[in-house]
Amino acid sequence: MRAVIFDGERLGVDMDRAEPDVAATRGEAVVRPLLAGICSTDLEICKGYMGFTGVLGHEFVGMVERVNGEDRRRLAGKRVVGAINAVCGSCDLCRAGLTTHCRNRTVLGISGRDGCMADRFVLPEANLVAVPDQVDDEAAVFAEPLAAALQACRQLHLEGQPYITVLGDGRLGLLCAQAMSRLNASVRVVGKHEAKMNLCEKWGIKHRHVSEIGRRQDQDVVVDCTGSADGLALALELVRPRGKVLLKTTVAPGGYAGGGSLDLSPVVINEIDVIGSRCGSIADAVKMLAGRVPTVDVISLISRRYRLEDAEQAFALAGQPEAIKVLIDMR
Amino acid sequence: MRAVIFDGERLGVDMDRAEPDVAATRGEAVVRPLLAGICSTDLEICKGYMGFTGVLGHEFVGMVERVNGEDRRRLAGKRVVGAINAVCGSCDLCRAGLTTHCRNRTVLGISGRDGCMADRFVLPEANLVAVPDQVDDEAAVFAEPLAAALQACRQLHLEGQPYITVLGDGRLGLLCAQAMSRLNASVRVVGKHEAKMNLCEKWGIKHRHVSEIGRRQDQDVVVDCTGSADGLALALELVRPRGKVLLKTTVAPGGYAGGGSLDLSPVVINEIDVIGSRCGSIADAVKMLAGRVPTVDVISLISRRYRLEDAEQAFALAGQPEAIKVLIDMR
Repeated sequence: MRAVIFDGERLGVDMDRAEPDVAATRGEAVVRPLLAGICSTDLEICKGYMGFTGVLGHEFVGMVERVNGEDRRRLAGKRVVGAINAVCGSCDLCRAGLTTHCRNRTVLGISGRDGCMADRFVLPEANLVAVPDQVDDEAAVFAEPLAAALQACRQLHLEGQPYITVLGDGRLGLLCAQAMSRLNASVRVVGKHEAKMNLCEKWGIKHRHVSEIGRRQDQDVVVDCTGSADGLALALELVRPRGKVLLKTTVAPGGYAGGGSLDLSPVVINEIDVIGSRCGSIADAVKMLAGRVPTVDVISLISRRYRLEDAEQAFALAGQPEAIKVLIDMR
Repeated sequence: MRAVIFDGERLGVDMDRAEPDVAATRGEAVVRPLLAGICSTDLEICKGYMGFTGVLGHEFVGMVERVNGEDRRRLAGKRVVGAINAVCGSCDLCRAGLTTHCRNRTVLGISGRDGCMADRFVLPEANLVAVPDQVDDEAAVFAEPLAAALQACRQLHLEGQPYITVLGDGRLGLLCAQAMSRLNASVRVVGKHEAKMNLCEKWGIKHRHVSEIGRRQDQDVVVDCTGSADGLALALELVRPRGKVLLKTTVAPGGYAGGGSLDLSPVVINEIDVIGSRCGSIADAVKMLAGRVPTVDVISLISRRYRLEDAEQAFALAGQPEAIKVLIDMR
């Protein structure tokens, strides 16, 4: 089969990858992806993040071809999206309900498990969520990153009508801004790119260029979607005492170290609450995408689609600052 | 009057410091300290923290000599301890109840206001709390750091019966460990010094040498009282996913940067909640010290007392790893 591969040194397309073997694993589904999305984590992996090698990709919409296990055919033949953490269900963290943090987890295209950018891939059937007919493939492929944005909302426990600044106008920042605009909050995106600011304008979301903002510690919440030491330092300048800074971007080890310049003393002095945020509920994301009145515009985030064979070009574009979401057509 | 001074370069005792001038400030009290304590923040100030110069010290028990303002004589002649932040009461943060974060605050012996290590000092009368007779001076002088430890407890919002590790067996670590032992929690101190571990043994608090602990992410809460990049890195190795790391030690700017080696990526991956913690309620601390059944042993924390004239020696001892609390007798 065809597959987009990172071999530890470079990205490439393998036209003769072996099919995944699921015969031994009960409850695993074989999925044929329709579309896949490129995420910043994929770009980090290509720089060595997690030491991952194998098939890339964890954002997908696809068709379930078969499920290994007689009693687990709920989704056979269905169009699905899926949670990326394949978990054991029996470790202390799974038992405590922290399944996305399972000690024995593998993560689709990120850790210990081949990803979705191949003609076929496997994921536990329990991870999959059926996509309602009214949700197009182009919207459904955003389920995973949208779930991550919704997770950020869920972790905030907002009171009153807070001021929220989203730092970064990239793919995740723009999803977070949209998700948070549905909260009882005043949301502002701080970014650098005119085209992305124009999207905020279209959505009715406040936006400012990073060079134009005041740095008075007065924001109740700052969501850092830059993943950079500079972004975190700026977040600590913007957030009010006892406010919250959400770190939403998965960064490579040392990603926030920033050459030793990062100063965490404001965290203590201003009693800031710095909260890491990762994966969220795919089912909630699907519900949001399927709403009769659309409450999130993901289609506008698509910069371009590529054929699987052109994955190298797709990844190159996804790494450009002006790009938002780059999709790979797997059909 | 006599005063312990930091002039920007070195610590010294000034035997001829001008008396504080309070004639112009309504509601300020003149306090004659009985005992003062040396805190790590004082040691940091002597290395340049906050760029502070003037009279040092913010931990005290003293007698109110007079209060400037006819209607504010509630405490005249009383023995008191006090909150260290002198606030405006009218900025957005004061009005929001975040008075310890007042935008216009001065802080006793730390920022914009001479400290308590002098024959007389001033502090707003509203900051002062009377000390009940049953609380000795030697205990009362711990009110400020104990309040800081209680603030840590208050910020945790514990559920169930959590596992808490206190990193660092210094003066603040040992106070935090005692305060947290009163919560419905399993508390363990991780330290390096036998004498301090022996104190934990005496109090019935679990303790381990840092070289002996496992590094499995399984603690619900880790309280970092080391203020070092190594301490924070260790905290991130010990805390469970979605657990809390409390940063309790005021650090100099860049204090956690640690030469660029600090890796914050576990914060995101494990969705850790990193919470800065500073000053707490002096009234709560006094209540705890005055309890009929003593619930905190501060007397055992006293390493040695010095006369004011020997402040340099006192500060030198306070900077030694084996020291806990060093007091200055101001009488």
